[in-house]
Amino acid sequence: MAESTEVKLLGLWPSTYALRARIALNIKQVNYAFLEENLGAKSELLLKSNPVHMKVPVLLHGDKPICESLIIVQYIDDVWTSGPSMPPSHPYDRAIARFWAAYIDEKWGPTTKAIDAVIVAGEGEEAKKAAVDKVYDILVLLEEAFKKCSKGKAFFGGDRMGYLDMAFGSCLGWLRFREKLHDIKLLDPAKTPQLVKWAERFCEHPAVVGVMPETEQLATIEYGKGLIAKVRGANPSKW
Amino acid sequence: MAESTEVKLLGLWPSTYALRARIALNIKQVNYAFLEENLGAKSELLLKSNPVHMKVPVLLHGDKPICESLIIVQYIDDVWTSGPSMPPSHPYDRAIARFWAAYIDEKWGPTTKAIDAVIVAGEGEEAKKAAVDKVYDILVLLEEAFKKCSKGKAFFGGDRMGYLDMAFGSCLGWLRFREKLHDIKLLDPAKTPQLVKWAERFCEHPAVVGVMPETEQLATIEYGKGLIAKVRGANPSKW
Repeated sequence: MAESTEVKLLGLWPSTYALRARIALNIKQVNYAFLEENLGAKSELLLKSNPVHMKVPVLLHGDKPICESLIIVQYIDDVWTSGPSMPPSHPYDRAIARFWAAYIDEKWGPTTKAIDAVIVAGEGEEAKKAAVDKVYDILVLLEEAFKKCSKGKAFFGGDRMGYLDMAFGSCLGWLRFREKLHDIKLLDPAKTPQLVKWAERFCEHPAVVGVMPETEQLATIEYGKGLIAKVRGANPSKW
Repeated sequence: MAESTEVKLLGLWPSTYALRARIALNIKQVNYAFLEENLGAKSELLLKSNPVHMKVPVLLHGDKPICESLIIVQYIDDVWTSGPSMPPSHPYDRAIARFWAAYIDEKWGPTTKAIDAVIVAGEGEEAKKAAVDKVYDILVLLEEAFKKCSKGKAFFGGDRMGYLDMAFGSCLGWLRFREKLHDIKLLDPAKTPQLVKWAERFCEHPAVVGVMPETEQLATIEYGKGLIAKVRGANPSKW
């Protein structure tokens, strides 16, 4: 079943969530077709495959659609069973990885986007600092989580990249875009030294190289351009 | 490990989320101590065990805390391995059960609470109908999901109650409370006949009897009393 069935991924290259699925497929060395969606004119295949949310990513395994990025990662791990399991194999470690992945899905997007909102609303430097501090609060928790989960090794998953690595690592492209956009350092060696080094390792991993979007690429898409225009206001040339 | 280690659950009896963990423990016939929390004065044990969210439920397996209801259910299934697995054993079925459980966690609470808000704001019958219709939209999707997941059997999980049964079944206490509160029928045999029958079976299951909160019980707690007072306004005697 796993090997002989055609695999397609409906996604968008700048999507944090599609990236998780791509990295998981790369780790398992699964051949797949990446079908780039157009959010302005979603494909019939996307609408049919994810009628509830109509969102990417969708993994198509033969004619079976699987939706939601972390569910896709677990599915990939369940079906292509070679190599170590992506959620840790010990039940407690697995529960902890799931806890932090859920935490990231709940907190990361709104908290980082809140920086954009504060700047766009012209709320000033103090409000910007408060918004950035909320991101640091998350990162400090993740630094502690990294220490516990990695047990002194390279990744949240230990020696090998795992579920939580993918859950958070997929956010690094937009994190770096926002660092440049707002002229701030979110991953700061003084605050979260281990996460800084982990992020470098993550981006250099063979499963990640070539699929992680670069800051300059994100600045070319409509959403990125729109953010730059709104944040930089009359002075977009500063970008 | 599984059998010899003390198990405690920090919870609240009216909590939808704590209920999921209780049902899962009951299904696996795990002996556990249920430690009722007081949200007005959370215990040191809760604050220490779930410092990130400071919320129930928390499962304590020996000295190991596990947080977040659906993660707890999976942990219970991973550790107490007797009987059929609660997330389905086939990867695709498992992905589908996870998809709908995540959907319920995202949509159910806000959409049902929106009915309360519309009534409290005095927005009138048309707005109430629109809010209730949004709940029907969810239920109709879940009716379809039930047909696919149950494959003609009694539960979302097939012959035996499973992960998705617990994810949605745990919502039935407050669903019934709101049916009475707003004088509406959410689980309507004309709209979702299979869900209506499933809900009856769920509530009669030995793992659920005795832990599912009754409408009259929910009307006695602060939150329930507050809702009744707000919704019934000057006429609480109608309850």
